[in-house]
Amino acid sequence: MKARVHITLKNGVLDPQGKAIQHSLSALGFDGVEDVRQGKYIEVDLTETDKDKAYAAVEEMCKKLLSNMVIENYAIDIE
Amino acid sequence: MKARVHITLKNGVLDPQGKAIQHSLSALGFDGVEDVRQGKYIEVDLTETDKDKAYAAVEEMCKKLLSNMVIENYAIDIE
Repeated sequence: MKARVHITLKNGVLDPQGKAIQHSLSALGFDGVEDVRQGKYIEVDLTETDKDKAYAAVEEMCKKLLSNMVIENYAIDIE
Repeated sequence: MKARVHITLKNGVLDPQGKAIQHSLSALGFDGVEDVRQGKYIEVDLTETDKDKAYAAVEEMCKKLLSNMVIENYAIDIE
């Protein structure tokens, strides 16, 4: 199974990378950009075939390694 | 409107970050991880209200700044 994980900064946490992109877009002449937030996108291929077990495993991975729970949220899609 | 952009490495392009995650997961005792690929996830808030125009603008942003077209693919969702 394939798990798609999105790691995003929690609301209120400063995102200097996103701000840098926003300023660059503005410098390149793109108007009407109100905000940019950058996160991570991780694809994990698993041998597990049970959807619930795969979800539980990936959630454990998020908590232990993939995300920093203090400042980041994670979202998991299994397919 | 909000655009969600996924920047992923093209197939065949080496992904050392993904490999590092894979090895760390293995070291933490997670079995059954076949492959890990890491990409970027960018949310762009736009003042534009026309879906097609928003898509075109974000596609232009991807080509000019957000992605390296030689080694990366982009996918855009507008909502």
